[in-house]
Amino acid sequence: MAGNSFGKRLKLTTFGESHGAAIGGILDGLPAGLAIDLEAVQQEMARRKPGQSEITTKRNEDDAVEILSGVFEGKTTGTSLAFIIKNKDQRSKDYSHIKDVYRPSHADYVYDAKYGNRDYRGGGRSSARETACRVAAGAIVQQFLAHFNIEVIAYVSQVGTVKCEKPYKALDLSKVESNIVRCPDAETAEKMIEAIKEVQHVGDTVGGVVTAVIKGTPVGLGEPVFDKLHAALGSAMLGINAVKGFEYGIGFEGVALRGSEHNDPFEVEEGTIKTSANRSGGIQGGISNGEDIYFNVAFKPVATLMQHQETINSEGDIVKMHGKGRHDPCVVPRAVPIVEAMAALVIADYFLMAQTDKMEQF
Amino acid sequence: MAGNSFGKRLKLTTFGESHGAAIGGILDGLPAGLAIDLEAVQQEMARRKPGQSEITTKRNEDDAVEILSGVFEGKTTGTSLAFIIKNKDQRSKDYSHIKDVYRPSHADYVYDAKYGNRDYRGGGRSSARETACRVAAGAIVQQFLAHFNIEVIAYVSQVGTVKCEKPYKALDLSKVESNIVRCPDAETAEKMIEAIKEVQHVGDTVGGVVTAVIKGTPVGLGEPVFDKLHAALGSAMLGINAVKGFEYGIGFEGVALRGSEHNDPFEVEEGTIKTSANRSGGIQGGISNGEDIYFNVAFKPVATLMQHQETINSEGDIVKMHGKGRHDPCVVPRAVPIVEAMAALVIADYFLMAQTDKMEQF
Amino acid sequence: MAGNSFGKRLKLTTFGESHGAAIGGILDGLPAGLAIDLEAVQQEMARRKPGQSEITTKRNEDDAVEILSGVFEGKTTGTSLAFIIKNKDQRSKDYSHIKDVYRPSHADYVYDAKYGNRDYRGGGRSSARETACRVAAGAIVQQFLAHFNIEVIAYVSQVGTVKCEKPYKALDLSKVESNIVRCPDAETAEKMIEAIKEVQHVGDTVGGVVTAVIKGTPVGLGEPVFDKLHAALGSAMLGINAVKGFEYGIGFEGVALRGSEHNDPFEVEEGTIKTSANRSGGIQGGISNGEDIYFNVAFKPVATLMQHQETINSEGDIVKMHGKGRHDPCVVPRAVPIVEAMAALVIADYFLMAQTDKMEQF
Amino acid sequence: MAGNSFGKRLKLTTFGESHGAAIGGILDGLPAGLAIDLEAVQQEMARRKPGQSEITTKRNEDDAVEILSGVFEGKTTGTSLAFIIKNKDQRSKDYSHIKDVYRPSHADYVYDAKYGNRDYRGGGRSSARETACRVAAGAIVQQFLAHFNIEVIAYVSQVGTVKCEKPYKALDLSKVESNIVRCPDAETAEKMIEAIKEVQHVGDTVGGVVTAVIKGTPVGLGEPVFDKLHAALGSAMLGINAVKGFEYGIGFEGVALRGSEHNDPFEVEEGTIKTSANRSGGIQGGISNGEDIYFNVAFKPVATLMQHQETINSEGDIVKMHGKGRHDPCVVPRAVPIVEAMAALVIADYFLMAQTDKMEQF
Repeated sequence: MAGNSFGKRLKLTTFGESHGAAIGGILDGLPAGLAIDLEAVQQEMARRKPGQSEITTKRNEDDAVEILSGVFEGKTTGTSLAFIIKNKDQRSKDYSHIKDVYRPSHADYVYDAKYGNRDYRGGGRSSARETACRVAAGAIVQQFLAHFNIEVIAYVSQVGTVKCEKPYKALDLSKVESNIVRCPDAETAEKMIEAIKEVQHVGDTVGGVVTAVIKGTPVGLGEPVFDKLHAALGSAMLGINAVKGFEYGIGFEGVALRGSEHNDPFEVEEGTIKTSANRSGGIQGGISNGEDIYFNVAFKPVATLMQHQETINSEGDIVKMHGKGRHDPCVVPRAVPIVEAMAALVIADYFLMAQTDKMEQF
Repeated sequence: MAGNSFGKRLKLTTFGESHGAAIGGILDGLPAGLAIDLEAVQQEMARRKPGQSEITTKRNEDDAVEILSGVFEGKTTGTSLAFIIKNKDQRSKDYSHIKDVYRPSHADYVYDAKYGNRDYRGGGRSSARETACRVAAGAIVQQFLAHFNIEVIAYVSQVGTVKCEKPYKALDLSKVESNIVRCPDAETAEKMIEAIKEVQHVGDTVGGVVTAVIKGTPVGLGEPVFDKLHAALGSAMLGINAVKGFEYGIGFEGVALRGSEHNDPFEVEEGTIKTSANRSGGIQGGISNGEDIYFNVAFKPVATLMQHQETINSEGDIVKMHGKGRHDPCVVPRAVPIVEAMAALVIADYFLMAQTDKMEQF
Repeated sequence: MAGNSFGKRLKLTTFGESHGAAIGGILDGLPAGLAIDLEAVQQEMARRKPGQSEITTKRNEDDAVEILSGVFEGKTTGTSLAFIIKNKDQRSKDYSHIKDVYRPSHADYVYDAKYGNRDYRGGGRSSARETACRVAAGAIVQQFLAHFNIEVIAYVSQVGTVKCEKPYKALDLSKVESNIVRCPDAETAEKMIEAIKEVQHVGDTVGGVVTAVIKGTPVGLGEPVFDKLHAALGSAMLGINAVKGFEYGIGFEGVALRGSEHNDPFEVEEGTIKTSANRSGGIQGGISNGEDIYFNVAFKPVATLMQHQETINSEGDIVKMHGKGRHDPCVVPRAVPIVEAMAALVIADYFLMAQTDKMEQF
Repeated sequence: MAGNSFGKRLKLTTFGESHGAAIGGILDGLPAGLAIDLEAVQQEMARRKPGQSEITTKRNEDDAVEILSGVFEGKTTGTSLAFIIKNKDQRSKDYSHIKDVYRPSHADYVYDAKYGNRDYRGGGRSSARETACRVAAGAIVQQFLAHFNIEVIAYVSQVGTVKCEKPYKALDLSKVESNIVRCPDAETAEKMIEAIKEVQHVGDTVGGVVTAVIKGTPVGLGEPVFDKLHAALGSAMLGINAVKGFEYGIGFEGVALRGSEHNDPFEVEEGTIKTSANRSGGIQGGISNGEDIYFNVAFKPVATLMQHQETINSEGDIVKMHGKGRHDPCVVPRAVPIVEAMAALVIADYFLMAQTDKMEQF
């Protein structure tokens, strides 16, 4: 109950600080008999790991996922699936200069105030390294969803002021991995990379937006009142480091519309009920309607700068600091697999819950 | 586990359809000894209730809250506090015309698909009437928060394309109730009312934004990883009917900034650690830092129109429909107390959880 | 999180004190489409209600269950099912004499210490009246279980020193309702009634044991580690007022046996795997094996005596008291439907959870 | 939600099979700043570990606990505390003979039926090896409780038909570790050891009872209705492998008493309210009253025999089997630290919950 668990029927509990021996998690509630492809998990880890390109941090971590339990002869057993990722490249001394310093817009101060102590090395539990566990669990869960033809695809739709103006339907989503910034529109991708290099050059950082699309969701996922499907997705996304906003369907833009412009007309296509515009983003009344689910996630610029900044220390004195270590100038390219992982966890959780919505025996 | 409960340490479970005998809820986890002012609760109900002004639905409900348990001699007992609100003005026949019709952008179709049946009268459990229970519980919880000088204030900051351009700090928040649209800026309020009347006149509807400010939160509320304070607030807001987006601090706008522009410098004010700009919105690393918490909630235009629309019925046939009954042309004025209530529930829940973050006995 | 909810996938949350306006509960997680027979619910209420025979309290309550939500046109909607039971025969003045008195072996003192206040009228939340809500919810859930041919039958197997020596298999369980003490063995029943009348005559009380049998449980209910099926049943039973012990299968008696005497040999009967002795009580490794589940629940003698007792008041002074009001000389006859109800809630909860143990799509 | 988590405010989630790489757990909710003595944890592990004496299994495992996260500079950080225990002495081939065999009174058959597959090596998740994680977590939690002068002491009170007739108050509980069977009464201990050796000699096993005493619990732990303190303790104990029954206070014995004999008279001792007899076992109405809490836990005889037995295989054929590997003739001596660990987890959980029962600010 201290915030390290996510999910209801399918629960992920994680642990680990960036400078401890290992990070990892326990995934509980996955049905038995699911074949696990560990290679595919590792590929997702590679998409998140630092040092993957010239626009990400130079830190180098293997992020090798070891499954400790819950898989026997290649298949899930139905009991708790635990995995660990050893921390290899820790370099603790890199962080000694910030031991008593509260970095601006970091969690240093609030951790000290809340807990009375804190692992100052690399942010401890507030380190984005923790998200590696989400990607590992999400990659496993995506293998579950694949059996039901549900697929989650995310991409970078904005970096700083560079925005991909095309809606997701106009993009070829198979092209996400075709460039290092993970925007499927090649032209925009180039501008985004340029924008990142520009801030990187001056030791600054920049924010961005990740857009996600979930295809193949059956009708009926989501619970009516507090646990609306988009509330769960929003909570999942807002729980990712550096996220500042979430909107689904046409989101904030829809505020300015009239109901007659915003409503999604129904239509029947080959006997299936569809909506023609999907401004609702695949969710109505908190429940999936079978259309594509899509949403945007806003990431703030990384707070650690490779510039001089003034700040305070734990005594309240003003001190000068300069970012050390290896940090990303822009978090969104590496955030893509994290967004996918969290979305997969939500969809699988609600998929499992929906199995008992009604019973054929009645 | 079917989505009718909210909160962890302080839990609200609600029930009720708009056309049943009553709606209500159970609030569990409130400490004992809290004096309950039922008049103050009723005042909050009046802010949400339909028929309160010329720009809201004409439905007329008393929404009288009756406490059934958990309060003895005016104070909470520490056990489950139950309350009901009887449904008075039901007019079931108003809804017979939509029995087999799936209204566009409503939950009709997904309920039928998910559950195999549905209470078609007034939307059943998907009716916004359900939010009355949240306001009742939130009003009680606000009395709890008042003992710790924590206050939640929300207001309407946008209606359609009419936007209050001033930030909350430039507004006199004591003026929220000074007009029927609940925007503390009188000039903007007038334009908003005009905008609502305009769509109302043509049987259409319009969306809007509610901005909320939480003052007095101590440092240290929020849990590090999945249960970040803003993730809980986001989930709470996205769980309100018609909400399409949530952002806190400067939110989506911050995406375009550089880290050097976005970071919040620390300063020490009379021995207290403060941040000078609060672009973070009072939360860093998912934990409150003692500054004002502020966020925006996007509401879509109401889906029920007083116009002719084409849609389908449960047989998949195209049918014509025309909104009947009594509906709001714009939901945000009445959404203000709902946003406050949900925010209060989150803050109280996390406040209680934080009581054991550390122990002085160690 | 203050102890008023029970269950995981199927959750019952209750409220109410014996002297408030009403008691009731919310049952959340029941699948949609279940036809509810309210008459049958009321029949279960009649089995628990006071005043039903010469060996129970003379209090007279109708205990009429009103369903407020979650049922539409006679069937569950899949959303939260709320019910209330109005308190009719309250007689608050009966309890004024104990306002400041801590009755021996009651919850008076601990409530005061824990909460700083307490509803002294009839025990407030600690009143056994609260169990009426469990019976109502359990009766609904038994209608769910009936669709899967699962049946829960409990009976009184001991009153004071009068013990039914026959095992449940040697009894005709259809005879439970054939006498007022609810022991299916007529001869023993008579002795039990006599034993109760004997203590009743001198204003004293006596304890007893309720034995329960669950028939028709499929193989596979129960979760391996902490949530073993019998741990859930034990928790459910120990949560009933006055319960002091729980054992399943041959229980405490098996302690004295050797493994070679205790083990349950397997056998195959018409292609189905069975065990021949069922000393395990239908559960192995925490998971149901398809045999009858059976267990014993020990109830202490009722603490309220119609005799003079010395005790203390809230000032710590010694005071004399004499039981007033209307109390049972022995709780077990009325506890039978409560035990059944709690068992039904557990089995239904674990039945729903087990639906996703494995998926045929893998 | 698949049964691998225990606790509400303080939650332990475990993982691991006896023949995987490691077992372990995540303890979430422990307040920050608690100094952890890992040596003391290891001492508890030694009390549970196999091979510790001539009356336990000969398996030899170090059971070295490694903490992976949540402790920084020797103190808890308030975030998730993860630990692992590597499996050293696995000897997988020992179990190949039971791959397709369903051992009597084991979980083999029900696992296969529930999950469609199973890790047959050493029982997989149903192995008692899993309890090592409970002891590790419990040992940490006992260090938390020590700051509040709460102590849990368990001992063996019965082995087969050999029963320690003295109540716990007549025993010197500091003598529990003075003999290998962990009964503080030397004379009885000798008879118990003899009884165990007797069954061991013939390849048989025998059951037993562990009695636990919790000293120093403050008044007010426990939640009124479903989460009574003894319901949580009962659930904790029944969740331990091989447990068949639980009773607290005088338990099943009290069934035969009259209320006038069973009730606990109050008395005032140096200004503190006490009860003179404590037949209630330190809990009244589900809430601790400050007296010693005591309870009994019944363990069945170990199901694995070093004798020939007939059983069936997964095809339903009758097969002969003979226990191999290294198994305990009686589980109770090694169960003592497990009972203590689970009790400590419950008490700490409820202690944390009770911190917000009432607030001095009201």
